[in-house]
Amino acid sequence: MTEYDLLGIGNALVDVVAQADESFLAKEHLDKGGMMLVDPDRATQLYARMGPAVESSGGSCANTMAGFASLGGKGAYIGKTYDDVFGTVFRHDMTAIGVSFTTPAATAGAPTGRCLVLVTPDAQRTMCTCLGAATALGEADIDADLVQASAVTYLEGYLFDPPEAKKAFVRAAELAHAAGRKVAITLSDSFCVERHRDEFRALVEDHIDILFANEAEILSLYQVSRFDDALQAVRGHCEVACLTRSEKGSVVISGDEVHVIDAEPATAIIDSTGAGDQYAAGFLYGYTKKRGLAVAGRMGSIAAAEIISHYGARPEVSLAELVRRKLR
Amino acid sequence: MTEYDLLGIGNALVDVVAQADESFLAKEHLDKGGMMLVDPDRATQLYARMGPAVESSGGSCANTMAGFASLGGKGAYIGKTYDDVFGTVFRHDMTAIGVSFTTPAATAGAPTGRCLVLVTPDAQRTMCTCLGAATALGEADIDADLVQASAVTYLEGYLFDPPEAKKAFVRAAELAHAAGRKVAITLSDSFCVERHRDEFRALVEDHIDILFANEAEILSLYQVSRFDDALQAVRGHCEVACLTRSEKGSVVISGDEVHVIDAEPATAIIDSTGAGDQYAAGFLYGYTKKRGLAVAGRMGSIAAAEIISHYGARPEVSLAELVRRKLR
Repeated sequence: MTEYDLLGIGNALVDVVAQADESFLAKEHLDKGGMMLVDPDRATQLYARMGPAVESSGGSCANTMAGFASLGGKGAYIGKTYDDVFGTVFRHDMTAIGVSFTTPAATAGAPTGRCLVLVTPDAQRTMCTCLGAATALGEADIDADLVQASAVTYLEGYLFDPPEAKKAFVRAAELAHAAGRKVAITLSDSFCVERHRDEFRALVEDHIDILFANEAEILSLYQVSRFDDALQAVRGHCEVACLTRSEKGSVVISGDEVHVIDAEPATAIIDSTGAGDQYAAGFLYGYTKKRGLAVAGRMGSIAAAEIISHYGARPEVSLAELVRRKLR
Repeated sequence: MTEYDLLGIGNALVDVVAQADESFLAKEHLDKGGMMLVDPDRATQLYARMGPAVESSGGSCANTMAGFASLGGKGAYIGKTYDDVFGTVFRHDMTAIGVSFTTPAATAGAPTGRCLVLVTPDAQRTMCTCLGAATALGEADIDADLVQASAVTYLEGYLFDPPEAKKAFVRAAELAHAAGRKVAITLSDSFCVERHRDEFRALVEDHIDILFANEAEILSLYQVSRFDDALQAVRGHCEVACLTRSEKGSVVISGDEVHVIDAEPATAIIDSTGAGDQYAAGFLYGYTKKRGLAVAGRMGSIAAAEIISHYGARPEVSLAELVRRKLR
């Protein structure tokens, strides 16, 4: 029985968002626009130097699940928090949007993971992630019943950073396929691909049905410099590849089928982070509802356009209504 | 030696802000636009029923201190947090804006206080406060050196809710006056005045130099129905009374001196909560910088207009620059 349309597995994080100027990034040796992993000491040091902040639940895959729920999809999530205030916040927000989240919180070890987000005046986000309890996600947290009951299991590439999570990841893929389910992944970011290129390639060839990657990520995965070469390389390795290209839209490839999807015009471009997460939400909603690849891609574009029109990585309006209006 | 222009003493709270519709308020029996005190069980229950939320440091007096710091004033704060994640968040945000905050966090008892804020589609805020660790603020937390080194000690009326804090409050006022300093208070909200009317009246007569109240609060304090009657009642009870009247501006009374201050036109009226906190910040900045009551009142209006032009109870721009431009 299919109980869930989508099961997401990711790093459970709370975003801590502050304004910062360029000189702060330079002084702290932070690569603007990137996502860096930091250890707890460095996170504490950076936090002490940052300005006043606002906190909200984050995590790439969790943001996708928020979009998926907003579209009307039935979702579940697996991720590791600690039994602390941020863990409670993360769990509340997930549950409140209607996503089932039953992974037990850790009661020993590191606190709930956090992502220090520095927003520069040009609206770019520079992220420093302290994975914390997320590194404690292990094979034991992969609820086999849940994987088997979910039409698609969606994995966050960032999970390749914590070593135990990577094993959990492969275990989930095996369980899903054994139950005749589909497995999807997002490569998450090009630096993440560089850190784990060989493993990502093996995974895409052996375990992945649906791949999400942006241009930088897919070029890095195959170490090529032209988009068309990357497109040819990925074709045939997985059932569907969704390659996103910012304002150039996206390309969805499945065997001989190629759909070029325009970017949806955004009402404003305020903050481009999180566009990939919402594209995945929209596409996977269309896919699980069997709307066909072109419509699924369009849904991804609509969800992505909503998210870049405001600060924050979770939808501010009902994506279900938005899609209904746009696809009329 | 005057080390600080302003010392604020208040309930240290983290705001947990979610959208809600009118039917949610009705179902939960919440008075729209009001601030209710809730116990931990009720807070947990309400939180579980609320939508996804965003967290940020709050607390009426702490918000005033944020505005005061943004104006360029030198401030310190006394308030009680618990040694948990929200306590760390509150301390960070206070320190990051340049306000000295050295009250030790509690290591036993209730967690850091929180205010569940429900924002209805008409942009009104309904608040349910679980005081938590804030109730542990006691006389021992009143750093006598700090009070004596501060030109004005500013007290939040909400401190009359936790009984120990009320004692701390009186102790701070006595210390300040013994050192030849000034004591200011805001009545916080009309329901708070109703809960503690007699004590507030005694306090205003015996201990307060500078009083902040809005129209509903001052009417409730003197149990009169006309603003002019309230104005006559308060005159002479304290050195300065600042009575705020929303879009009608404010009236500053000091002995025979009466200044009618226009409301500053706001670029937009998005969220009126926090206007009183920022009016106090602006007025106290002008007052401590000896700019005269009329200019101080104008500074209050400018700070209040900034805060109602956006969501959130802390300034989003430099109030120092804003005031410089407006008073040119």
